Amino acid sequence: MSNADIFLGEVIGTAILILFGAGVVAAVVLNYSKAKDAGWVVIAFGWGFGVMTGAYTAAPLSGGHLNPAVTLGIAIDTGEWDKVHFYIAGQMVGAILGAVLCWLVYFAQFQANADEEIAQPTLGIFSTAPAIRNPVANLVTEIIATIALVLPILAFGLTKGLGESGTAILIVSFLVVGIGLSLGGPTGYAINPARDLGPRITHALLPIPNKGTSDWGYAWVPVVGPLIGGALSGLIFNAAF
Amino acid sequence: MSNADIFLGEVIGTAILILFGAGVVAAVVLNYSKAKDAGWVVIAFGWGFGVMTGAYTAAPLSGGHLNPAVTLGIAIDTGEWDKVHFYIAGQMVGAILGAVLCWLVYFAQFQANADEEIAQPTLGIFSTAPAIRNPVANLVTEIIATIALVLPILAFGLTKGLGESGTAILIVSFLVVGIGLSLGGPTGYAINPARDLGPRITHALLPIPNKGTSDWGYAWVPVVGPLIGGALSGLIFNAAF
Amino acid sequence: MSNADIFLGEVIGTAILILFGAGVVAAVVLNYSKAKDAGWVVIAFGWGFGVMTGAYTAAPLSGGHLNPAVTLGIAIDTGEWDKVHFYIAGQMVGAILGAVLCWLVYFAQFQANADEEIAQPTLGIFSTAPAIRNPVANLVTEIIATIALVLPILAFGLTKGLGESGTAILIVSFLVVGIGLSLGGPTGYAINPARDLGPRITHALLPIPNKGTSDWGYAWVPVVGPLIGGALSGLIFNAAF
Amino acid sequence: MSNADIFLGEVIGTAILILFGAGVVAAVVLNYSKAKDAGWVVIAFGWGFGVMTGAYTAAPLSGGHLNPAVTLGIAIDTGEWDKVHFYIAGQMVGAILGAVLCWLVYFAQFQANADEEIAQPTLGIFSTAPAIRNPVANLVTEIIATIALVLPILAFGLTKGLGESGTAILIVSFLVVGIGLSLGGPTGYAINPARDLGPRITHALLPIPNKGTSDWGYAWVPVVGPLIGGALSGLIFNAAF
Repeated sequence: MSNADIFLGEVIGTAILILFGAGVVAAVVLNYSKAKDAGWVVIAFGWGFGVMTGAYTAAPLSGGHLNPAVTLGIAIDTGEWDKVHFYIAGQMVGAILGAVLCWLVYFAQFQANADEEIAQPTLGIFSTAPAIRNPVANLVTEIIATIALVLPILAFGLTKGLGESGTAILIVSFLVVGIGLSLGGPTGYAINPARDLGPRITHALLPIPNKGTSDWGYAWVPVVGPLIGGALSGLIFNAAF
Repeated sequence: MSNADIFLGEVIGTAILILFGAGVVAAVVLNYSKAKDAGWVVIAFGWGFGVMTGAYTAAPLSGGHLNPAVTLGIAIDTGEWDKVHFYIAGQMVGAILGAVLCWLVYFAQFQANADEEIAQPTLGIFSTAPAIRNPVANLVTEIIATIALVLPILAFGLTKGLGESGTAILIVSFLVVGIGLSLGGPTGYAINPARDLGPRITHALLPIPNKGTSDWGYAWVPVVGPLIGGALSGLIFNAAF
Repeated sequence: MSNADIFLGEVIGTAILILFGAGVVAAVVLNYSKAKDAGWVVIAFGWGFGVMTGAYTAAPLSGGHLNPAVTLGIAIDTGEWDKVHFYIAGQMVGAILGAVLCWLVYFAQFQANADEEIAQPTLGIFSTAPAIRNPVANLVTEIIATIALVLPILAFGLTKGLGESGTAILIVSFLVVGIGLSLGGPTGYAINPARDLGPRITHALLPIPNKGTSDWGYAWVPVVGPLIGGALSGLIFNAAF
Repeated sequence: MSNADIFLGEVIGTAILILFGAGVVAAVVLNYSKAKDAGWVVIAFGWGFGVMTGAYTAAPLSGGHLNPAVTLGIAIDTGEWDKVHFYIAGQMVGAILGAVLCWLVYFAQFQANADEEIAQPTLGIFSTAPAIRNPVANLVTEIIATIALVLPILAFGLTKGLGESGTAILIVSFLVVGIGLSLGGPTGYAINPARDLGPRITHALLPIPNKGTSDWGYAWVPVVGPLIGGALSGLIFNAAF
């Protein structure tokens, strides 16, 4: 894989991931959406199928990491660091772009937020926020949830047949659904620095009516937590497998 | 694949797709249905499993496109245009037929719509309508959502193993569920000209009591938008992959 | 496959199918069940995973038909009729047995039905009933829904890879979920004579408090409709594929 | 597989299983969780994807049993008993550890239970309890539900392709979802002695505010029932297949 293919693959794949992921939250929370109030199961499956679609699309170009925590865990496992910055750059650009695409898809709904009587803060569509704000507890949640993502991904590579049948990415997608259902309650499961930081930048820049704060005070948690979790996953994998 | 097989496969496959897709909306919105008010997750999975069933059934005959936007994207990718009209003709006939089958399955429920006190407009079972009527925004939504369908389908063909294991269509089906969950909020995700226009014709022709308008003023959006999205997918795929 | 293996496989597989299928309705409708009122999506997936589990378990012994309509469609397709009675006998015994197992699993809940103030009719756990009682319309619904099951099953056998990867039964299971979501609204989707008649016999025999009628007047519809649908599927398949 | 790998694999895999399984109940029942009241379908899929993730992760080390009832059924089937104690020891340690991880993920939510006005019993997050307390009926439920788990798992090994395509564990995961949907109503489907006893020990030891009883009087049912079910599965499998 060339450096250009890696960058391009991660841009396209992560843009799809965020289009679907931010999209499903928009679908559930925005007024005048046909999926309004459709519930947590919709959010978890929407993000999972976003991972599925983005990763299968990116796979022929870059392998489909779509997540700096995954890239970091793989780098620690393999000891190969020379492509890491192409991956992460592509992921950040893709995440910012995907959030813009989500805004375009829900443009009329976002504009309806100009009606002050029904307006609500919009950051939750783009980035995560904790249910109880407690930085240490939130960080621990993100670390453990990211280990629950990256350690299995590393282990899946050892399972015979998943690669040959092309179903490994499908399994990862259901894993992401599972993390959403099981571990998303406290912090909304960023488990991916690009997934949280990229759309937060987009939210800060877009001219959405009554959009509310971009909450930069919390922004470090969903970046640092997943990076720690990804690194720990690589270390645990190397020690245990 | 012979021209007759292509036409027949697309008729059967698209009829199944619409039977399931229109059927699940009927199940959720019609009075005296056991799935009444079962929610958006039911609608998204119903359409997804309709794609799955129709495409696997059609695959041995026609490859199972079931969607002019998919046929268009593939034609732009491959440069082969000589079968395109057989595909699209089959898709249109199948979509009209599938909507008739849905009407037969829910015949007693549709007849109950004769009760003026509980009667509701029925077009939503057959065709899409926007949550906020804004042709430009609706068109953009359909274009992006169709790219999110067709570009990944083109890329899936590059993933080793999906073809050999027969699971490619299953992945596409979950992708359609994902589009429904994530991108269906503004317009109800036509993402397929035949899926919207065929059943709209059926709706206009069937003797359903109190059926309401067939809303021909909006009918061009879910035709033009998906065709633009399918064409752009082919162009992006050829440029990037 | 020996005749004894066919009979035994169909008994075990159909018993599992009905244990899960009747079980999920019991889970959703019975008082003092932890899944009380969990909704239609739960019922559809419960039946689908029952098909999955029963068919994979029976597959090494009998191929896992679990449904006289499937057996009939395959017989018409292949012209081989000499094993059909072993299949159908096993399916009927298995269906009766599976309904008994469901009663044992929910024994305490069924006994709670002795409380006349909270008692409800129990037949819906075992067998189907129409939302609107109209024998001709109900029969048409069951015929079309069964064609939507059996014709794709016959066609799946032509898709390369599904057999080799062992995933064909999984696809059929999701197809059954799809039929439940999309076509189950009018009649509760029997689509299987053994699935409806076997548990109806069990319901008539079991000493369930306040169990209500076994509704024998409707019992022919979910037997005749699926058999017609299975036969038509075989004929359509032979003509079209 | 070395004894150390078996122990380690079962520790990691069962810890993941319980992290996801206890986690999804925490997500649905705890105050200040974003998935509060998300319903039974979320719980069933959360446990299923926990099995999927834990078993795929453990598979390269231990084969991924994660359940003494599965280990027992396999031992009866194969007649190989010399590794059984390494499996069960790993499963118990992993289950205790996984429950601790769940507590860490939901730490802030558990601490909020100190508010006596909103405090609720917490045992349901860790271990099962019957909807109607009737030891004999509850035991029968757990026995049948465990047979519905272990007998199919043993039979899946006979299906060609599932092993080669790496999808056998995915099928087992959907089977566990199905058991939750269909058979979980009466007792909450322990179907695994380690899954119930390990987290109950953790619950008894952790300093959770207002945590309520650990209900040791019921603890034998979800241990004895699944062991009987696992043993019967091995016997039935050897007799029938």
